[in-house]
Amino acid sequence: MEKGRLLYEGKAKQLFATEDENILFVSYKDSATAFNGEKKEEIVGKGNLNNKITTILFNQLKKHGIDSHFIEQISENEQLVRKVEIIPLEVVVRNVAAGSLAKRLGFAEGTTLSHPIVELYYKDDALGDPLLTDAHLALLELATPEEIETIQTKALEINQVLQPIFKEIGVTLIDMKLEFGKTTSGDILLADEISPDTCRLWDDETNNKLDKDVFRRNLGSLTDVYEIILSRLGGLFK
Amino acid sequence: MEKGRLLYEGKAKQLFATEDENILFVSYKDSATAFNGEKKEEIVGKGNLNNKITTILFNQLKKHGIDSHFIEQISENEQLVRKVEIIPLEVVVRNVAAGSLAKRLGFAEGTTLSHPIVELYYKDDALGDPLLTDAHLALLELATPEEIETIQTKALEINQVLQPIFKEIGVTLIDMKLEFGKTTSGDILLADEISPDTCRLWDDETNNKLDKDVFRRNLGSLTDVYEIILSRLGGLFK
Ligand SMILES: Nc1ncnc2c1ncn2[C@@H]1O[C@H](COP(=O)(O)OP(=O)(O)O)[C@@H](O)[C@H]1O
Ligand SMILES: Nc1ncnc2c1ncn2[C@@H]1O[C@H](COP(=O)(O)OP(=O)(O)O)[C@@H](O)[C@H]1O
Ligand SMILES: [Mg+2]
Ligand SMILES: [Mg+2]
Repeated sequence: MEKGRLLYEGKAKQLFATEDENILFVSYKDSATAFNGEKKEEIVGKGNLNNKITTILFNQLKKHGIDSHFIEQISENEQLVRKVEIIPLEVVVRNVAAGSLAKRLGFAEGTTLSHPIVELYYKDDALGDPLLTDAHLALLELATPEEIETIQTKALEINQVLQPIFKEIGVTLIDMKLEFGKTTSGDILLADEISPDTCRLWDDETNNKLDKDVFRRNLGSLTDVYEIILSRLGGLFK
Repeated sequence: MEKGRLLYEGKAKQLFATEDENILFVSYKDSATAFNGEKKEEIVGKGNLNNKITTILFNQLKKHGIDSHFIEQISENEQLVRKVEIIPLEVVVRNVAAGSLAKRLGFAEGTTLSHPIVELYYKDDALGDPLLTDAHLALLELATPEEIETIQTKALEINQVLQPIFKEIGVTLIDMKLEFGKTTSGDILLADEISPDTCRLWDDETNNKLDKDVFRRNLGSLTDVYEIILSRLGGLFK
């Protein structure tokens, strides 16, 4: 599969065309951003780590019967994925209160929720990725009510698979952000990435944050903690 | 009915006990506040205006078969209401995009929505009255899912009654904030007030704002525009 022209560059990845119009070449970048792009840094090795972690997690989901856009890892920082039409929603699954949920509801950070929840945010940098209710979704028509329902169900299923995997490597999956897309045949497919950039992962022994909050809150070396996640996952699935 | 001890003082009203434990004495204050209490001013006459406008609107709702806590107007700035246990939700009905909805969804102010919507905000000054989704409501358990459903249905019914009334006095009901409470028998009842403090009302001819935005955005005399609403309503229902 050959890397064609650059189709799109986001904050964390570049998407390239291939000779197959249904397949994209994804290159994971070494840049870290937070607060809607306000904080930004180049961090050598980050792209490789997220590429490898995402590869492991999408492979595990596949084994548990959950499809994604992932096709195969191609190099240290590259993978092939199925092209989809991304639905502009940040689909957040939460098991434990942290970040904006803790602030919104006045819950202490670390409070385990009575059940996992899904929140939908409008993926729109200019609007600051606002939270959406069902009423807003009906106005925006970003997806049909059935598609929204499917997305929420799939998000909870993905959480059910990943929670115990992280538990086995001594980590609690606090929350994660997923993205879904539509295939040409109209199916809803998990896309984008699942990595410490897009999850909150807390070490069960030390309670240390092993995710992008290390970067957001200047808590230490991002690659050191992403390396911990990769090596523990690698140890589990070798 | 005698005015007993002060039970509670809010930003716009005082609640007093009466000799009947199921009935409260409400006194409308002359203070105007905005931005969660950051902007504050005494405006002589405001309490009288809101008391009278709320009285007319609750009476009209009653005529259209919609009950509320309202019992009767007692004086220029006082009314008797049925005591309820307020459900801490700000129930916002919107017909036209304005304020936070326009910002959230990137809609131009003044865009008529394809259909009226209801938004629920957590009535909690310390948290800044955050927007809630169904998932948040399930975590907070402020009301049962059936009660939430009832509240949303009633809010839309109230909107269906008030929209044409305002249309007849040459005003568009852009949006409004309602509060509901629970009676001792567990029924959901419309409570609080419906006034230019809690509605956005735009004049159909001049497009002028005839509501609290005049105070929020320093657009002129608050009592002048509340007076317009009262006198037009008074003219309609004399
Ligand atoms: N399978 C896919 N097909 C098409 N676009 C995708 C796919 N997977 C992810 N994307 C999109 O790739 C873009 C680049 O990713 P990223 O750098 O993370 O962007 P962002 O700055 O929006 O977070 C994003 O817009 C993402 O939604
Ligand atoms: N029928 C009622 N029974 C009990 N409380 C009520 C009733 N109607 C309104 N309230 C409450 O009265 C309080 C005072 O009103 P207000 O001054 O508008 O308060 P706020 O500062 O919260 O807006 C509010 O907490 C409101 O929810
Ligand atoms: Mg991204
Ligand atoms: Mg009030």
